[in-house]
Amino acid sequence: MIKVTAVNYVKEGCVDEFLAISKELVEKTNALDKGCIRYELCRDVNDPLRFIMMEEWEDQPSLDAHMKASHFTENVPKFGNLTSKPSELTLLDKVF
Amino acid sequence: MIKVTAVNYVKEGCVDEFLAISKELVEKTNALDKGCIRYELCRDVNDPLRFIMMEEWEDQPSLDAHMKASHFTENVPKFGNLTSKPSELTLLDKVF
Repeated sequence: MIKVTAVNYVKEGCVDEFLAISKELVEKTNALDKGCIRYELCRDVNDPLRFIMMEEWEDQPSLDAHMKASHFTENVPKFGNLTSKPSELTLLDKVF
Repeated sequence: MIKVTAVNYVKEGCVDEFLAISKELVEKTNALDKGCIRYELCRDVNDPLRFIMMEEWEDQPSLDAHMKASHFTENVPKFGNLTSKPSELTLLDKVF
């Protein structure tokens, strides 16, 4: 199992558009992507422009396939105009 | 439901001690703390000195009680000598 966190810093005034794109991404990923254990968007309680996608995948090939799916390749590039800096992506292993 | 991520940057040479303390904290939290949905330690695949505690709690009172439990108050302060900077704590709400 592999975990991913993807931190996005959304520009002021762009939250609604960011959420609309993220909603489609989250719904299609959960519905369609093989090996997806968890894929959800969370919001920083103390920084409402900071969003974190929390992900869990069965294995690396499942994550690789997700990043080639059309709902990923068509939606994620749209985040570029809506965010104030690049996504911070972290791959994580569970220790215990 | 409330989520927490706590990022810890462990000093080189201190990982074994950090893990021993964390293991007790994770085990006792999962075994004893009411309202604990998930409490697990993860390690950054690309930065083996960066550890993230991934937490989910039923509500804020459960999280507050956890931070008063002896396994928290006795173990977490020990991290201070083992880490290179303060923990980065984030409270998160699930959006979808």
